[in-house]
Amino acid sequence: MNSIGRFRLEHTDGQARCGCLQTLHGEVPTPVFMPVGTQGSVKSLCPMDLDNMGAGMILGNTYHLYLRPGDELLAQMGGLHRFMNWKGPILTDSGGFQVFSLSDLRKITPEGVEFKSHLDGSRHFFTPEKVIRIQKNIGSDIMMVLDECVPYGADLEYTRNSMHRTVQWAWKSRDFYSGETGKQLMFAIVQGGFFMDLRRESAARTCEIPMDGYAIGGVSVGETKQEMLDTVYFTAPLLPRDRPRYLMGVGKPLDILEGINAGLDMFDCVLPTRNARNGTLFTSSGKVNIKQARYRNDETALDPGCDCYTCMNFSRAYLRHLYMAGELLSFRLNTIHNLRFFINLARKARSAIQEKRFAQLISRYRNVEKEQEG
Amino acid sequence: MNSIGRFRLEHTDGQARCGCLQTLHGEVPTPVFMPVGTQGSVKSLCPMDLDNMGAGMILGNTYHLYLRPGDELLAQMGGLHRFMNWKGPILTDSGGFQVFSLSDLRKITPEGVEFKSHLDGSRHFFTPEKVIRIQKNIGSDIMMVLDECVPYGADLEYTRNSMHRTVQWAWKSRDFYSGETGKQLMFAIVQGGFFMDLRRESAARTCEIPMDGYAIGGVSVGETKQEMLDTVYFTAPLLPRDRPRYLMGVGKPLDILEGINAGLDMFDCVLPTRNARNGTLFTSSGKVNIKQARYRNDETALDPGCDCYTCMNFSRAYLRHLYMAGELLSFRLNTIHNLRFFINLARKARSAIQEKRFAQLISRYRNVEKEQEG
Ligand SMILES: [Zn+2]
Ligand SMILES: [Zn+2]
Repeated sequence: MNSIGRFRLEHTDGQARCGCLQTLHGEVPTPVFMPVGTQGSVKSLCPMDLDNMGAGMILGNTYHLYLRPGDELLAQMGGLHRFMNWKGPILTDSGGFQVFSLSDLRKITPEGVEFKSHLDGSRHFFTPEKVIRIQKNIGSDIMMVLDECVPYGADLEYTRNSMHRTVQWAWKSRDFYSGETGKQLMFAIVQGGFFMDLRRESAARTCEIPMDGYAIGGVSVGETKQEMLDTVYFTAPLLPRDRPRYLMGVGKPLDILEGINAGLDMFDCVLPTRNARNGTLFTSSGKVNIKQARYRNDETALDPGCDCYTCMNFSRAYLRHLYMAGELLSFRLNTIHNLRFFINLARKARSAIQEKRFAQLISRYRNVEKEQEG
Repeated sequence: MNSIGRFRLEHTDGQARCGCLQTLHGEVPTPVFMPVGTQGSVKSLCPMDLDNMGAGMILGNTYHLYLRPGDELLAQMGGLHRFMNWKGPILTDSGGFQVFSLSDLRKITPEGVEFKSHLDGSRHFFTPEKVIRIQKNIGSDIMMVLDECVPYGADLEYTRNSMHRTVQWAWKSRDFYSGETGKQLMFAIVQGGFFMDLRRESAARTCEIPMDGYAIGGVSVGETKQEMLDTVYFTAPLLPRDRPRYLMGVGKPLDILEGINAGLDMFDCVLPTRNARNGTLFTSSGKVNIKQARYRNDETALDPGCDCYTCMNFSRAYLRHLYMAGELLSFRLNTIHNLRFFINLARKARSAIQEKRFAQLISRYRNVEKEQEG
């Protein structure tokens, strides 16, 4: 129990690294891709599905869970793990991103942010302390501090002020929860938009705060791929080497490999689950749009190299039929495959780092992307 | 292989009976409840779910599968079993019910029925022979003959003419597929509306046709519960004792027990799957409407006596949350429970018949229904 929070760095290959993070609900080998389970369920999947695909840690969403079913109800039910019957680790994001993207934004003050619920318009106020209290009720293994995710295009002054506020909020979060129980870990978030000076300052100030891990936030907000990569490659080395580093909300398969290449360890993105529901499927030879007529009588597996339940049991023709017929099973089978693809990607990266061949792995994926674009 | 189609009557208890039907894809112990998988999928479930809940035989729908993905595609894919990766037996209804309820009806002639697709308005013509040819392409274990399901309220003359046509269609179906392969079974359907004389005549004429089983159709079309029961109790004993007897599209748990009590063996209904998606769940102590606020913090299993995946793993509070949040997992967990309830009901009936205590079983369910109404 005393080792909860320990991050053991195991191997490096260039900047890329693999390790192991100890949480209350088990060890998480890194690099890791975390499926997103916004409101207490990874959409369409049950815990058995997640186990079968080898999901290590999943994500919950503080904003959504606070509004519904409510964090106090979750506490009464013994926490989110017990509520959704998930025995593995859970990371909860702070709700900052949702407050700033989903809800009617009311006012940001040094104390916190007032917002209206996107469900019923009711008014709420999030402080850094309150967001940690919610996550204590949820019982997540990793709590994220409240941050402001500035919109793409924000100017230098706004971004600097916001960044300083986010640093203050991280301190308040730390002071509010000093880790007395040693069970729930806390990560802070580096912001600073796409101004490298601000990113440097944010990293320096944020990493002064004693945390169990550090995240890069404020990317995947509408910037170009090059801006995203520049920011990630610039910021990653500024984070402590001996702590897990989490790139929030990124991204496409190659983006995740770039993040790993920059020295990051943890990743989440709605892309595999959201695209699954749209019929866009990731395979080792590029994207498949399952609704295309060419798959009508295609008896092959979606991705012959994949070992997921979907690929082991069904043809592209059947997946296309389910999609075209609007069958609920379509969402589930597609989601199982896409998540397995992302989880496997992180695992392949881990093996490649262990065997000092990560450069080859990423160059193969860069070539696949070039082919798809060309 | 030579025993395909054999129906072994094992025990009786009053009119109630249990037995075993041999199909190409395995033995089906009766009484049996068959989950409905309209278009190549029991909504929201994969074959693993069906296996886990002990589903014996499932239903497919000739009308829907003919329109999408098309029976010729299914033949090309090796039949419906291979397409959906279901290894157990499949019964396909004839499409008659859907032609008469879903589609723009064009014209009924002695040769068949012309109709418009509910999907794209395209025109199609079903003959008894064509419907069997479609089911050969589908590869179902049990094919149903084309019949006309007359609307509730049809007069004596219309119902009599329709009934005679349905008998003629059954003969044409039998002549078209003489069972040369000995693999796919064929059932004919007794009609006659709610006129007992017509039911008697239909049963007599239909049972002259050599078939592997006989069904009662044309109930659950809007009649009162008493009319349904009168028709079922009147017609069941007119069907051959040594063949499986199938009550089509019925119904509520107690209705199924009444059907068993009348001497019927096979049952299907969309009620458990459709109600699951509406949040209406069947339990041993009556119906539960999972959206009710009283379940908000109810930590107990949906049905403490149930052994399904849902009840073994989740609370009513979680099921309510999934329903309220519109989570896709809600459909699946609810469907798993409701189907397990119906499958178990048929199994309990089977045990009760074996042990000569079926009268006690049905009286218990009659009392539960009285309590719910009172
Ligand atoms: Zn797969
Ligand atoms: Zn259950």
